[in-house]
Amino acid sequence: MIDPKTTRLPDSYIIRPDPQDRRLTERVTGIDQTGARIETSVTVERPLTIYLNSQEIVTAMTIGDYPDYLAIGYLLNQHMLLPDDAVTGVDYDEDLAVVVVRTQRKTNYEKKLKKKVQTSGCAQGTVFGDLMQSLDNVSLPATPLKTSWLYRLAHIINTTPSLYLEAGAIHGCVLAQEDRPLVYMEDVGRHNAVDKIAGWMFRENVAAGDKIFYTTGRLTSEMVLKTVRMGIPILVSRSGFTAWGVELARKANLTLIGRMRGKRFIALAGEERIVFDQDLEYVEEESSKHRRKASVEGGGA
Amino acid sequence: MIDPKTTRLPDSYIIRPDPQDRRLTERVTGIDQTGARIETSVTVERPLTIYLNSQEIVTAMTIGDYPDYLAIGYLLNQHMLLPDDAVTGVDYDEDLAVVVVRTQRKTNYEKKLKKKVQTSGCAQGTVFGDLMQSLDNVSLPATPLKTSWLYRLAHIINTTPSLYLEAGAIHGCVLAQEDRPLVYMEDVGRHNAVDKIAGWMFRENVAAGDKIFYTTGRLTSEMVLKTVRMGIPILVSRSGFTAWGVELARKANLTLIGRMRGKRFIALAGEERIVFDQDLEYVEEESSKHRRKASVEGGGA
Repeated sequence: MIDPKTTRLPDSYIIRPDPQDRRLTERVTGIDQTGARIETSVTVERPLTIYLNSQEIVTAMTIGDYPDYLAIGYLLNQHMLLPDDAVTGVDYDEDLAVVVVRTQRKTNYEKKLKKKVQTSGCAQGTVFGDLMQSLDNVSLPATPLKTSWLYRLAHIINTTPSLYLEAGAIHGCVLAQEDRPLVYMEDVGRHNAVDKIAGWMFRENVAAGDKIFYTTGRLTSEMVLKTVRMGIPILVSRSGFTAWGVELARKANLTLIGRMRGKRFIALAGEERIVFDQDLEYVEEESSKHRRKASVEGGGA
Repeated sequence: MIDPKTTRLPDSYIIRPDPQDRRLTERVTGIDQTGARIETSVTVERPLTIYLNSQEIVTAMTIGDYPDYLAIGYLLNQHMLLPDDAVTGVDYDEDLAVVVVRTQRKTNYEKKLKKKVQTSGCAQGTVFGDLMQSLDNVSLPATPLKTSWLYRLAHIINTTPSLYLEAGAIHGCVLAQEDRPLVYMEDVGRHNAVDKIAGWMFRENVAAGDKIFYTTGRLTSEMVLKTVRMGIPILVSRSGFTAWGVELARKANLTLIGRMRGKRFIALAGEERIVFDQDLEYVEEESSKHRRKASVEGGGA
């Protein structure tokens, strides 16, 4: 029997948070509930303007790590960069806070930039209407999902040193394979974290069909659409669902698991991928130390 | 001595969540961690297209209550509707999911619609660059904030029946005066909840200088900018801070209180408004029943 709490694995991370990176947090002083002076860490938030070739696309607020992956992932998830596009270069100017993605193909999104749909996601939560269509010709593989993987992933992710644990006010997303977390991205905007992973997968030519996508954010329509668009068959979250997120996941045959905390989770779509191999006796409820705090995003009666 | 836990006040809400509203949640079936069939509530999420006079401005994903307040608040917070504008009508068509705000003044935001800044807020988290300028000629009143009000507000808000407690995956914002919550709005997009309150204040001609704004969301640059723009001098959250949010709050002399859970809170700007009248002996830590779950937004070491 697998005990996700005690099982120690060799660290499988290719990319993981770096809470020690001085550029990502700031120390600020204030007072606490007793009026005493305190010093605490807060997450940085800075603008990054993304260009596709000669065209300015968007300015995003981000923590500023991996601007290249963020830019490519954003353009991919907006259908501005196509999976078969050849990226001839990505230039980042830190002083100007500008990243330029260059492609062989000529691009022009003047029209698209006019018609945007605001979604209930965060930050990069702007999708274009036609993203909806991407569900029609999609078929996600029947990759199995063992519950023992789920619990082990949750345990490893929740105990991985992160900007969240250091400074809070940040979203996290993890790309995993079976019980191994591969890439853990954080950002002030949840969709930045998603897009950084999408950009990494594109740059590194990573297959999606055997992967699991874990997010700390809510399972909204846009989160589902982005996961499907990336070709990942399984989406897992600590947080709750929206009705449209569930509907789209069912339409795309995406396995949708939410409200995963301690022993508990709920699957509202693609349940047939789940293999119940975990003896729940061996799964602990979360310690308050690792419980994510002050949510608006979990819940549900 | 005030005991926020036991003090019973007459209900001060003018608008409060209606978790029984059948249009706002859906019952869906799925399975839990044991594989057993379960039924649960999930929050709805539906598109609403906002027009200003003859111009289509944006399509937002919302739970769909108060489309008129959402539209007006969104336009106000985007500087498309000005505080002195005369709104001659607000037409909502539920079937078309369209709301049209009509003003006496002719409006044209073709240019603005091209240049958007994606922020780390949610949903309506798109602000135009010039929103930044709104800090320059702002001066917020020296309204005092008693800590006894804070604890009583937190207790009342956290125990108010809500869509969050019913279905989760939703943000909440509350407009309060002293220790009295007045308007409690929820939405799948945090900024929808903010904008619905802004729209209500505009329609009802409500003064802002003596109010307190409580949000379940993070204290990002945009959240601070919107609160200042609304003229509210005090912003309180259960969640964490971003560095830029703190910087802007200090620039605008906004009282910024975050990570408020149980006894604890941290103030990182405008501390001089705070009056420490609450004996902390009388403040309980949150019960897990009312603790908001699965956050990415609180935290901080």
